[in-house]
Amino acid sequence: MKITPEQRNSFDKDGYLFFPSLFSPEEIQNLLAVVPELYQRREEYNVREKGSDAVRTNFAAHLYSKPFAKLARHPRMIKPVEDLLGEHLYMHQFKINGKMAFEGDVWQWHQDYGTWVNDDLMPKERAMNIAIFLDEVTEFNGPLLFIPGSHKKGVIESKHDLTTTSYPLWTLDNNLISQLVSRAGGKMVDR
Amino acid sequence: MKITPEQRNSFDKDGYLFFPSLFSPEEIQNLLAVVPELYQRREEYNVREKGSDAVRTNFAAHLYSKPFAKLARHPRMIKPVEDLLGEHLYMHQFKINGKMAFEGDVWQWHQDYGTWVNDDLMPKERAMNIAIFLDEVTEFNGPLLFIPGSHKKGVIESKHDLTTTSYPLWTLDNNLISQLVSRAGGKMVDR
Repeated sequence: MKITPEQRNSFDKDGYLFFPSLFSPEEIQNLLAVVPELYQRREEYNVREKGSDAVRTNFAAHLYSKPFAKLARHPRMIKPVEDLLGEHLYMHQFKINGKMAFEGDVWQWHQDYGTWVNDDLMPKERAMNIAIFLDEVTEFNGPLLFIPGSHKKGVIESKHDLTTTSYPLWTLDNNLISQLVSRAGGKMVDR
Repeated sequence: MKITPEQRNSFDKDGYLFFPSLFSPEEIQNLLAVVPELYQRREEYNVREKGSDAVRTNFAAHLYSKPFAKLARHPRMIKPVEDLLGEHLYMHQFKINGKMAFEGDVWQWHQDYGTWVNDDLMPKERAMNIAIFLDEVTEFNGPLLFIPGSHKKGVIESKHDLTTTSYPLWTLDNNLISQLVSRAGGKMVDR
């Protein structure tokens, strides 16, 4: 799958690309069907919400779940990124975020690279997030929000927040987030 | 200001009406301008967020702020409700909800009547909420969510939640909320 020049420009400008229906409803269903059993695995694989059994994040399902192992290697997942970056990839991290109704806690504003550099010692910000939506994402069910164009700011200094949620996170300064949002014309994107 | 038959039908079906730009930007600005001083008043008038100075809710500004006293009596605020209910009104409660960026906490799903009957001993569910948006409301800044048609369920039993936020609230059962949302076709409305 090749990235078009228009997609390349849009990625450069906004910092993300969106491919609706890249996986079929049947393919998504095959993934969704195994999530409950993955969420029952022991703590090593699942970070739970504060004071609740609700799973916040499951880790590394590509190592022990066949459908997710296939997804992790799927050409429709890998090829667009290889085309965009112009080189071969390896998988740094693989997560299934629960976003449980009612019990899911907030995610503070952050750059993932803050965690990758500080906790994982990733030497350079040469990495790409690929997110697959297992449920339909709407403005009502806790969508991930992006600030278009905020990637132009590069790597931003982050602070280690150990208290807000059960999941320690390298987070950004709220004043800076406000500035980035107003620079984007007050527009965020929910995906 | 008269309610049209279409508006009356829509109110009956969905449980709410929306009047965009009923107040002018200048009028809204006159209200907004005094909010910071109202939020500095002593605790008696302001409930603050847990562990923060951010105001969650200011109470009774119509008693001590001229712009809000005028709003509370404004024909554009009162007349549509009098027309809809077919009788004269009194003011039961007057609040300015802060919804502070970053510091604002969640509002659990609830019916306001749960508080009015349990805490205020309001004898009957014959009351109307009127909400004025002082800031533009978008899907990104913590909008109030409604479940269209859920008012047809009438008064729902509620539980007193004293722990989730700084503000005690009579809240609803999450399973029931899920049912009402799916009955509404998964559609909520953010206003």
